[in-house]
Amino acid sequence: MAKHRVVIVGGGFGGLQTTLNLKGADVDITIVDRRNFHLFQPLAYQVATGALATGEVAYPLRSIFRKQENVRVMLAEATGFDLDAKQVKLRTAAGDETIGYDTLVVGGGSKYNYFGHPEWQEHAAELKTLEGALHIRAQILRAFEEAEVVSDPVERERLLTFVIVGAGPTGAEMAGQIAEIARDTRREFRVIDTWQTRVLLVEAGPRVLAAFPPRLSKKAAKSLESLGVTVATDQMVTDIDADGVTIKSGEGEEKVRAGTVIWAAGVLASSVANSLAEAAGAEQDKVDRLLVEPDLTLPGYPDVLAIGDMVQVKDGDPLPGVAPVAMQMGRYAARSIKSKLRGGTAGPFKYKDKGNLATLGRARAIAELPPGLRVSGFIAWVLWLAIHLWYLVGFQNRVLVFTRWGFSFLTHGRGTRLITGDDKLP
Amino acid sequence: MAKHRVVIVGGGFGGLQTTLNLKGADVDITIVDRRNFHLFQPLAYQVATGALATGEVAYPLRSIFRKQENVRVMLAEATGFDLDAKQVKLRTAAGDETIGYDTLVVGGGSKYNYFGHPEWQEHAAELKTLEGALHIRAQILRAFEEAEVVSDPVERERLLTFVIVGAGPTGAEMAGQIAEIARDTRREFRVIDTWQTRVLLVEAGPRVLAAFPPRLSKKAAKSLESLGVTVATDQMVTDIDADGVTIKSGEGEEKVRAGTVIWAAGVLASSVANSLAEAAGAEQDKVDRLLVEPDLTLPGYPDVLAIGDMVQVKDGDPLPGVAPVAMQMGRYAARSIKSKLRGGTAGPFKYKDKGNLATLGRARAIAELPPGLRVSGFIAWVLWLAIHLWYLVGFQNRVLVFTRWGFSFLTHGRGTRLITGDDKLP
Repeated sequence: MAKHRVVIVGGGFGGLQTTLNLKGADVDITIVDRRNFHLFQPLAYQVATGALATGEVAYPLRSIFRKQENVRVMLAEATGFDLDAKQVKLRTAAGDETIGYDTLVVGGGSKYNYFGHPEWQEHAAELKTLEGALHIRAQILRAFEEAEVVSDPVERERLLTFVIVGAGPTGAEMAGQIAEIARDTRREFRVIDTWQTRVLLVEAGPRVLAAFPPRLSKKAAKSLESLGVTVATDQMVTDIDADGVTIKSGEGEEKVRAGTVIWAAGVLASSVANSLAEAAGAEQDKVDRLLVEPDLTLPGYPDVLAIGDMVQVKDGDPLPGVAPVAMQMGRYAARSIKSKLRGGTAGPFKYKDKGNLATLGRARAIAELPPGLRVSGFIAWVLWLAIHLWYLVGFQNRVLVFTRWGFSFLTHGRGTRLITGDDKLP
Repeated sequence: MAKHRVVIVGGGFGGLQTTLNLKGADVDITIVDRRNFHLFQPLAYQVATGALATGEVAYPLRSIFRKQENVRVMLAEATGFDLDAKQVKLRTAAGDETIGYDTLVVGGGSKYNYFGHPEWQEHAAELKTLEGALHIRAQILRAFEEAEVVSDPVERERLLTFVIVGAGPTGAEMAGQIAEIARDTRREFRVIDTWQTRVLLVEAGPRVLAAFPPRLSKKAAKSLESLGVTVATDQMVTDIDADGVTIKSGEGEEKVRAGTVIWAAGVLASSVANSLAEAAGAEQDKVDRLLVEPDLTLPGYPDVLAIGDMVQVKDGDPLPGVAPVAMQMGRYAARSIKSKLRGGTAGPFKYKDKGNLATLGRARAIAELPPGLRVSGFIAWVLWLAIHLWYLVGFQNRVLVFTRWGFSFLTHGRGTRLITGDDKLP
C-alpha cells in the first residue's frame, strides 16, 4: 500500500514543527517553500541593525531535514488548491506542477497591513523577509553616511530622523537598536553629531508592547526613552510620502520629515490564506485570517489543517501571531496526523501560554512568565538571550550568535554594518 | 599652518595600509570609497560558496578608523582628477564635490577582463564585489534546487554543469569548493544524485595556478581532480551564451551546456586608473595598468602616488596583482609621505615576496615560501588558515571565521547556504 502523503506548505515555525514531529512516522512528507531556508523571524531585526549576519537567523530547509528520510524539500510556491481532488498547484523553477496529498498542512504566515494605503509601502521599509532586513540595514547606515556629507542642516536633520510605526515587539526593538547605533557610532563620524539622531516610535494605541501588562509597558517605554527614543503613543500615522510621515494626535496633525520610515504596524494573513479560503469556501476574519475548527482543520475539509498566524480558531480565544503559537500548532498538526493514521483523533488544539519576552537594547528586557511572574531589566535580558539561543536552528548558529552578542556586549559594536545590495551612490 | 592634506582614493588593501600607517602623523587624511567597507577579497570566494558570511570578509571603514583621529571617511566615488589644481572630483549622495590635496594616493583596484567580449559578462558570474559573491552563491544553490524539480534529464545535466573560466587562485578555489558542495550535500536531495555534478575548470595556459612552480601546479591539479573537478588546460573559451560555453582545444571546438559559468580569467585596471592616466597624460600597459616611477608616483606628478593592482613600476619587474603587493605599496606610500614631511625621500619601492598560498578544498593547499621552500597538503592548509585569519580585519571576525572553519572541518557543512537577493521563482 502506498504511504500516507502529507504535503506541508510553508517552512516557517509551524510547518517546520509539523515536519520535524513526523520524524519516523510512516508517511511521505513534501514540504514546500518559496525560499530555501527557514527564517528565525524574531531575530530578523538584528540583521536589520547589523548585529547578526543573515545566515545566523536563517537555516537551509534541506540541512534541517537532511537525515529525516521521509521528507522531500521542494523549492516552489503554492499558487492554488483543489481540495476536492486533494491537490496543490505549485509553481517551480521548472514550471507549473500539481501534487496530490492525503493530508495537507498549510502555514503561509502573514504580511504587513497598510490599512488600505498600499501606496505607503513604497516609502516605508518593512522586516518580513531577509531582503527587507538587509534593505533596512543599508538604509539606516546610508542615512548616517549621507548626513555626514550633506551641507544643508535641514536635510541633515531629515536624514537623522527615523520613524518607526507600530510599537509591538518588532517596532520597539527596532527603535531601541537604532538609538543604540546612533549612540555607539558617535566616535566614527567627524562632521555629524550622531547624538542629534531622532528616533520616533509612533503607536496608535495608548501604550507600547500592548501584549504585556501595563506595568511592564511602562518600564519598556522608560527604557526606550533612556536610550533616546521618543515614544509617541495615542498618535496615528495619516500619511507617508517620500519626505516623511504625517502624524495625528489629540493636538492636531503634524508633518515629521524623516529619511527612514519603518512600518511595523499590524499584519494581514498571507495570500495563501486567501487562496485556501477560496478553495474551501471558508470564512476569514477582518485581517484575512482563516477561521478553523478547534482541531485546526478547515470547515468541511477534515484532511486540511491550517496553522500559524494566518489562522484563528472559530469562536476560540484570540491567539497572538507569535512563534510559540505557530510552533504549538505545528506540533499539534503532526500529532493529529499520527492519531488519524492509528484511527483516532487528537482532540482540540490547546495553546499553552509560556510567557512573553521583549528586549529593549543592551542588557534590558521585559518578560512575563506564566504564573503572573513579571521580570524586567538584566535578568529578563539574560532570559531573552538564553531562550532565543535555545530556539535558534543549528548548533553552529548558536555558537556564532553567542559570540557576536558577547562581543557586542563587551565592545558596544555590531558585527555586520555593511551597506550592500547596490554599490551605486544615489 | 594648515596641516598637510592627504587624500586616499580606495579602501582596498593598499589604501587601508597607507591610512593605517599614517596613524599619529601630523596630516589630515580623507579616505574615499564607494563602499562603506573594506573587502577581504581573498576570502570572497568563501562567501560565494556559503562557507562564510558577508560581514566576516568585509569590515566597515569607519570602524577601522574609529580611533585614528586624523582620518575622515567619505562614502563617495572619485569621478575625475585635476592634478594641476590638486583636486579630486567626487560624487557623493549629497551631490558633486571637489576636494583638495597636498598628497594624493590612489588605489582603485581592478576589474575582470573579458578580452574584448563585453557581451560574455551577461552570461557569466564574477567575484569582484560582495554582491557578486552573493549572486554566485544564489546561482549555485538555485542550480541544485532547479535540478531537483526538473524532469528533463538533458536540462538536469545542464543545470548540474558548472564551468569556471581561468585557473588562477580564484578559479581553482571556486572549482574545488563547488565540487565539495556537490559531495557534501548529496544526502539532502531525494531526486538528483549530486555526484553527477560536473565541475569544469578551463584554463588557456598549460597549467593551473601558474604563479606557482610546475611541481605544485601538478599537485594542485591532482587535488582538484580528486575532488571531482575536470581540469581542462590548454583550452580556450571562444564563446559564452545563455546556454553555456564554447571551448576550443587542440582537437577542435566543443559546446559545453552549463547552468552556471563563472569568469575568473584575468583582470584590467579599474576605470579610476583610466581617469588618472588621462589627467596625468600617463602611460598604461595593455591591461590598463598605470606605469609609475620607482617611488610609485605618476611621471611629472611627485605628489600623486598610485598603488595596488592598477599599477606596474615602469621598467621594473612585473608584480602580481595580489594583496601582499598592494599592502606593501600602501605601507610604502605612508612612509614616503612621512619622509616628504621631514624633507627627505623614501627611496624606490621594493617588493618583498613572502610567498604564495592557495587552498584546494578541505585540508588541502599548496604553499611556496621564499627560500625555495615548497609545502603541500595538510601543513600548507594549516598555514593558509593561519595566515588568512591573521590578516582578517577585526578580532571578532577572526573568532567567527575560526568557528565556522572549525565546524566545516568537523561536519563537512557550510554555514550560510541561503538563496537571497530575490524571493521570486524564475
